[in-house]
Amino acid sequence: MTRQTESNRSHLKKRVFHFINQSRLFINFIYALIIVDMIALVLGSYKEIAQDYGYWLRIFELFTVFIFTVEYLLRVWTADLYHRYRGSALKKRIRFVFSTYGLIDLAAILPFYLPFIVPFNFLMLRLFRLLRIFKLGRYSRSLQTISKILRETRAELALTVFAVFILLVLSATLMYYIEGKAQPEKFASIGHSLWWSIATLTTVGYGDVYPITPMGKVLSALIALIGIGFVALPTGIISSAFIRNIQQQKEKKQKPTCTCPNCGTEFKPD
Amino acid sequence: MTRQTESNRSHLKKRVFHFINQSRLFINFIYALIIVDMIALVLGSYKEIAQDYGYWLRIFELFTVFIFTVEYLLRVWTADLYHRYRGSALKKRIRFVFSTYGLIDLAAILPFYLPFIVPFNFLMLRLFRLLRIFKLGRYSRSLQTISKILRETRAELALTVFAVFILLVLSATLMYYIEGKAQPEKFASIGHSLWWSIATLTTVGYGDVYPITPMGKVLSALIALIGIGFVALPTGIISSAFIRNIQQQKEKKQKPTCTCPNCGTEFKPD
Amino acid sequence: MTRQTESNRSHLKKRVFHFINQSRLFINFIYALIIVDMIALVLGSYKEIAQDYGYWLRIFELFTVFIFTVEYLLRVWTADLYHRYRGSALKKRIRFVFSTYGLIDLAAILPFYLPFIVPFNFLMLRLFRLLRIFKLGRYSRSLQTISKILRETRAELALTVFAVFILLVLSATLMYYIEGKAQPEKFASIGHSLWWSIATLTTVGYGDVYPITPMGKVLSALIALIGIGFVALPTGIISSAFIRNIQQQKEKKQKPTCTCPNCGTEFKPD
Amino acid sequence: MTRQTESNRSHLKKRVFHFINQSRLFINFIYALIIVDMIALVLGSYKEIAQDYGYWLRIFELFTVFIFTVEYLLRVWTADLYHRYRGSALKKRIRFVFSTYGLIDLAAILPFYLPFIVPFNFLMLRLFRLLRIFKLGRYSRSLQTISKILRETRAELALTVFAVFILLVLSATLMYYIEGKAQPEKFASIGHSLWWSIATLTTVGYGDVYPITPMGKVLSALIALIGIGFVALPTGIISSAFIRNIQQQKEKKQKPTCTCPNCGTEFKPD
Repeated sequence: MTRQTESNRSHLKKRVFHFINQSRLFINFIYALIIVDMIALVLGSYKEIAQDYGYWLRIFELFTVFIFTVEYLLRVWTADLYHRYRGSALKKRIRFVFSTYGLIDLAAILPFYLPFIVPFNFLMLRLFRLLRIFKLGRYSRSLQTISKILRETRAELALTVFAVFILLVLSATLMYYIEGKAQPEKFASIGHSLWWSIATLTTVGYGDVYPITPMGKVLSALIALIGIGFVALPTGIISSAFIRNIQQQKEKKQKPTCTCPNCGTEFKPD
Repeated sequence: MTRQTESNRSHLKKRVFHFINQSRLFINFIYALIIVDMIALVLGSYKEIAQDYGYWLRIFELFTVFIFTVEYLLRVWTADLYHRYRGSALKKRIRFVFSTYGLIDLAAILPFYLPFIVPFNFLMLRLFRLLRIFKLGRYSRSLQTISKILRETRAELALTVFAVFILLVLSATLMYYIEGKAQPEKFASIGHSLWWSIATLTTVGYGDVYPITPMGKVLSALIALIGIGFVALPTGIISSAFIRNIQQQKEKKQKPTCTCPNCGTEFKPD
Repeated sequence: MTRQTESNRSHLKKRVFHFINQSRLFINFIYALIIVDMIALVLGSYKEIAQDYGYWLRIFELFTVFIFTVEYLLRVWTADLYHRYRGSALKKRIRFVFSTYGLIDLAAILPFYLPFIVPFNFLMLRLFRLLRIFKLGRYSRSLQTISKILRETRAELALTVFAVFILLVLSATLMYYIEGKAQPEKFASIGHSLWWSIATLTTVGYGDVYPITPMGKVLSALIALIGIGFVALPTGIISSAFIRNIQQQKEKKQKPTCTCPNCGTEFKPD
Repeated sequence: MTRQTESNRSHLKKRVFHFINQSRLFINFIYALIIVDMIALVLGSYKEIAQDYGYWLRIFELFTVFIFTVEYLLRVWTADLYHRYRGSALKKRIRFVFSTYGLIDLAAILPFYLPFIVPFNFLMLRLFRLLRIFKLGRYSRSLQTISKILRETRAELALTVFAVFILLVLSATLMYYIEGKAQPEKFASIGHSLWWSIATLTTVGYGDVYPITPMGKVLSALIALIGIGFVALPTGIISSAFIRNIQQQKEKKQKPTCTCPNCGTEFKPD
């Protein structure tokens, strides 16, 4: 391989890199493919459509997998051009493969190849392609804000989730002892009872399981009322984080400048 | 047409313009008509009432359509007197016709005339007249605040809606594969499964569709708990926008300037 | 009536006024009576209890009504000692009778006397006595804060309620036309359809009425998702009002004082 | 007992104190035991598992109770080493026994010993051990923040709970009089009616009880709509408390002082 061909290859790689990363046309094509693929998956789940158009849906699936496979391979090949990664070309490629977007891209094609190795239907994993849509430019700033908020409130939210978990287990156990004799089938175990706990605390209330004894109803009422409080807590946490975020941005922007009225010197306070 | 008659017509137009836009009597009459028309529509949907009073309801409908048609024509005719529009009289009229309020006014009368052209019942479009009530003076300031808030948080709210959409499709697909065999009728396709997703994520929980397998119940519990989080996110976004709005107004109003009453030196504290 | 007896009466009135308004013992007795009366009302609604103990419950009711009547008459009699009212003694008494607390006190005894005039059971009006509990000292400050918040956000909250109302009517009408043919009994009229609208928008979802056609399910999904948004809006409004309230209190408390570092004069900025 | 042995015992006590309070290994072992014990309790509630593995579950229970009992006794023994308690060794031990964590630790072992005295199954009290997990270091700061917030908003939240309570009783009574005749079994008393009130106000809506008369539906709609408002109120209260908390921390941290770098005059901008 002469230096000329290597230079050509390097030039080609750069063009490919720009095409798959910046070409509006290519990006929109990929997004359209994701959406159409999702619709195909939904349609294919209808028995009548699967019978009549199953052949065409299968062809379309082969087509999308082919496109996504080629795109994935090109992304791995050109990953050494990323500035945000450091190290050798191989290291950069490995870092890409294990980056969030790299894994999402892999998850989008793997479901097709896996059944050849493991006899299991991974078809639904195709849907992970949907996550790629978050890369869309216009959402990226809002996504950054929201994920920053969620990261900042991680500890408080985790505590809330944890408290919800304890409340679920406690109430399910109580309900099992209270209601178990009156409805031995629906509250057959604490596990069964948990299904009631969740339906009540989240205020979903399907209506398949509910207490019939007075004590059970009192407990159910308590859990439902606490459920309202458990909406208030994460909402308060997230709201306050959003507001803190706004205030921080404002402070950065308009850091006050003090002018000493005595000698006229302008300076910034610490 | 002499100058005199033209002046008369101009004078008449101005009086009509003021009457339909500022006369408390006329405006209240129109709002009353909208409310009564809404009640008539609701009453007319009861079979017994439609049988006994259908004739009178039809007469009343003809009357309201006549009033709204005349009002609409007068509004188009006098639209050239609006100061907020620029350009020739015709251009002003066209701008009015395609303005939000112009379209709402048109939507209020069109359902009556359309069936003469297209054989379809557009009756329910009459309800769009209800939107005119938002023009009511006392609501206009609050409406401006709220719509400003919603406009400012457009991007974040859109992202939330989008995340909800992806979550709905993902959970519906998962549930279809998990629960499809146990309840082949209720989870007959991903489309059917979506109905469960929505009922669970929004915590409506009608109770017509719910999982019966342990795995399905685990997924359902997860989605219901995430549903609580998805109430917290838009609430946090909207709350913080309201507070930012309040702070902006306050900053505009009361930017503090310290004026030393001794030596007259004016300076800003920060 | 000599001056002496008048002075005695005046003295007695003052003691009565202090007793019914400030005696911890009397106030707690009245609150206890309200609570026990509520329990008696609830118990009396059980048929078995009404049969076995109806006589004693009736005696207890006569006793409470007697106490509340005496208390009410004493309050009217001593109302001329209120400092917050102005004018003649009669005027002060009339102002008390038509004040919020005066009306609540009246509502607590009226249900007993009304059936002698109008043949209708007003028994449940007795429950209005519960509202008196809000007068309890320890709640009064929080109640003031919350009612101030609700008053400040009146306009925005009214607009939200109004938007909910329009949304309910619009969606009920749409659903009536969409689902009316598939479920002619459950969606027999727009009025019937409204019941579905409310159950869906508030995410209650009893499960007695839900759409079965695909179009109806799409509309139902939309309304349920919008329902989440309609929780976010009033929450955002109320949250921001609470925060504005806190900031106003802080500003009042710690109004910054500027000290001119040149001549040492202390003054307050505008 | 010579001074030497006493010193030895004091040394041993210190080592034990450090082991049960600071040894990562011991703490993690206890947490693991709590989790496994919870899983054992849940599994033991399944009849099939109880039949097949009941013996082993009982052995495991004896083992955990033994560990927790030894741990509790060691904690009481070493409680005189706590710096946060004052007074004599006995006083310190009593303060520990009646502290929140002391009571939780006792509640974790008591259910095993109580049945020997009182013939009642307290097994589910074992679950209180779960509360110990809140002691986990990484949660402690978030827990402090959240409990501070809840303490600060105690009065407002209590008022909200109280208003909810009054609303529940009022609506249940109204519904009993409205719907009692149409559904004499489901609305047999105000107590039965309360079950509907709670299901509606919390928007759980199991679907076992709902009104069928027009008037009952109107009341139900009102309560469901008010239910949305009652989510907004505590959320607003909690949100604003979080923000106040953030602002207080910020004020403490960064009270700005302007130091003129020219003449060295220090002054506060406001």
